[in-house]
Amino acid sequence: MKGLPAKATRQHTKNHNSRLVLRIIYEDEAISRADIARKTGLTRTTVSTVVGELIEQGLIEETGAGQSSGGRLPILLRVAHEAHSVLALSFEDTQIVGALVDMRGSIQRRVSLSLYGYRPEELPGYLTRLIEELRADVTTHILGIGLSMPGIVDPVHGIVRRAVNFGLVDVPLRQWLQDQYRLPVYLDNAAHLAALAEYMFGDGAASGNLVVISIGVGIGAGMVLNGALFPGDGFGAGEIGHVVVADNGIRCNCGNVGCLETVASVPAIVRAARKWFSDPSSRLRALAPSAAAVDLDIVHRALEAGDPGVASVVEEAGYYLGIAIAHIVGLLNVERIVVTGAVAVLGLPFLEAVKVSLARHALAPLAAMTKVELIPERSDAVLLGITAMVLDQELGLLHTRVRLS
Amino acid sequence: MKGLPAKATRQHTKNHNSRLVLRIIYEDEAISRADIARKTGLTRTTVSTVVGELIEQGLIEETGAGQSSGGRLPILLRVAHEAHSVLALSFEDTQIVGALVDMRGSIQRRVSLSLYGYRPEELPGYLTRLIEELRADVTTHILGIGLSMPGIVDPVHGIVRRAVNFGLVDVPLRQWLQDQYRLPVYLDNAAHLAALAEYMFGDGAASGNLVVISIGVGIGAGMVLNGALFPGDGFGAGEIGHVVVADNGIRCNCGNVGCLETVASVPAIVRAARKWFSDPSSRLRALAPSAAAVDLDIVHRALEAGDPGVASVVEEAGYYLGIAIAHIVGLLNVERIVVTGAVAVLGLPFLEAVKVSLARHALAPLAAMTKVELIPERSDAVLLGITAMVLDQELGLLHTRVRLS
Repeated sequence: MKGLPAKATRQHTKNHNSRLVLRIIYEDEAISRADIARKTGLTRTTVSTVVGELIEQGLIEETGAGQSSGGRLPILLRVAHEAHSVLALSFEDTQIVGALVDMRGSIQRRVSLSLYGYRPEELPGYLTRLIEELRADVTTHILGIGLSMPGIVDPVHGIVRRAVNFGLVDVPLRQWLQDQYRLPVYLDNAAHLAALAEYMFGDGAASGNLVVISIGVGIGAGMVLNGALFPGDGFGAGEIGHVVVADNGIRCNCGNVGCLETVASVPAIVRAARKWFSDPSSRLRALAPSAAAVDLDIVHRALEAGDPGVASVVEEAGYYLGIAIAHIVGLLNVERIVVTGAVAVLGLPFLEAVKVSLARHALAPLAAMTKVELIPERSDAVLLGITAMVLDQELGLLHTRVRLS
Repeated sequence: MKGLPAKATRQHTKNHNSRLVLRIIYEDEAISRADIARKTGLTRTTVSTVVGELIEQGLIEETGAGQSSGGRLPILLRVAHEAHSVLALSFEDTQIVGALVDMRGSIQRRVSLSLYGYRPEELPGYLTRLIEELRADVTTHILGIGLSMPGIVDPVHGIVRRAVNFGLVDVPLRQWLQDQYRLPVYLDNAAHLAALAEYMFGDGAASGNLVVISIGVGIGAGMVLNGALFPGDGFGAGEIGHVVVADNGIRCNCGNVGCLETVASVPAIVRAARKWFSDPSSRLRALAPSAAAVDLDIVHRALEAGDPGVASVVEEAGYYLGIAIAHIVGLLNVERIVVTGAVAVLGLPFLEAVKVSLARHALAPLAAMTKVELIPERSDAVLLGITAMVLDQELGLLHTRVRLS
């Protein structure tokens, strides 16, 4: 018995049904009022009222006549997705990317600022410049500002708890942006938002559950559980990069030994591959002038060329990732787990190693019902995740907790 | 965009507010209409209407006058918890236990049937006998039948997918019981229900997230995430007993090598302790006539007597459990993890070993914010979990998804 739900009012009912109708139209692309009434169970009168309000708000529009089933041609409705934008800000390793994104996830405008020479006290100036550039001469309605940050982000209170690369500790970024721009502001962790992007704009998950593991310089996961992002009590859910999987492994920056990041991150794979540079069987020497010049692309090409040492390195990384995934499968029994990020270029040999290891480390029936996929990093995954977050919060377009049975 | 929420109606609003009022009264033990209005934000008129209906349904009752703050003494309300029962059926290793439990989790009546000689085709007869005995001469109102089963249970469709010990595969037990008794019927997996019991009748979790790991003959976990049980896509969430944690361990019944159950279950601990029986330093010989006679109780007594071999066995079991918990912490970042079951008698030495291993296998700040507790198995944990399930489903007494901020 924790927390107290809010009382329900007639306004809640109205909002709920309005969101339901908007969602049906969003999913369908072009649908008549009659079909909306049929699909939702709402009366024709209620649907007409709600549709009228949504048209007035500019969220939907009429789009010509549809097929007749006898009588008058029905008028079709669609979401006016080009008329509304999300202002998305993605804090990345070396830059801040800003974009205006429409309701279908199409990027309408993009700017970026290099972080070369950045100092934390300059952050307000950086943000102001980016947002002003994105908003200049824009005629669409901005639904809200969304912001992604690597690190520990508290989306409930809108505070960046700890973002080491940006020198931010307990910064109430939402409040500051709201004060400046009088727009709704939402923020979350980058790995969580990548999961939301895949859930909303990718193949998603039929069940409302999805785990997305992003592997690049670091390793992080995001989870949609029961149709909503799962943040964890300290907003650190998905921090699987520092779970130990190699008890006799090497020391990690975090202080422990054998963390997943020490054996399966991109730097770990490149580092392990470089050790094979001087091996007589290695193809690396044909691809790089020195061990130090070996990067992920060269590892990938050596793998394709049949380099046995590099193959063993990729297999070992997949083996350790498989251990971490076995724990996820045993704990959550989710039917779809997506691995993405820079590591995805390693393709099938890496994925196969993951699957072999998963089968060895998890209960057979659970492993068998889990689909593990390796998909290339979407160049705009985080921008899409930010857009999904704002569309969810502002318009309920991700909401799936209550289901028709 | 998966699934479709149901339309909201005035009836939903009414039900929502009725459940809200019931929950306030349930939490408070004795509360006035004025205080309910203050706490919920509902008008005095709405509260009076709802309270009137709840009294009419016999769910609450007036219980004398409270403290006055000047004027007329306010009349206090309480839940009529003795007037309503849940009929709980718990399928266990060697018996089926049935109980009538009131709304506060007090067991009013209990019967059990030994499974000696049980054959699957006799199940209907067993259930009929148990339920008839429990219902005989009962004057309270039965809210519903709840049923717990070890194995894979589909609570959505009310089907036992696979319960090996009872020879059940895809049995629509809910339908059968509903047809027989014209009562609401709910069923779920035993480990999931143990988590629900701790959440509702134990210390719960302030945040709406809780993981409970039960260790006895087998190892299973249950999870409350965002205030609701998390079942997993195949209803197999929490099956952590068969995640491999000891890569060079012994073969498990499941076919893999080194599963958590092979190193941290009660049989695994007893088996490992028996190997020390013949060691000169062992205290076991003073406690048991033979290695084969060593059981968990004797392991516990040897541990308390300072047996170094047994201490190392307990430490090793804790070490491996700590690995599994590190993965849970990294993935979910929940602030409270409870370990319970028969293993809890091993007490502090076991818990300390778990914590040392957790610190070594998880990111330090995440491990530090996680409270791992070892609590004795409640003798009626599963019966309480069944009761929590029925109270949640029928009366919304567990519902916490919508919060006042």
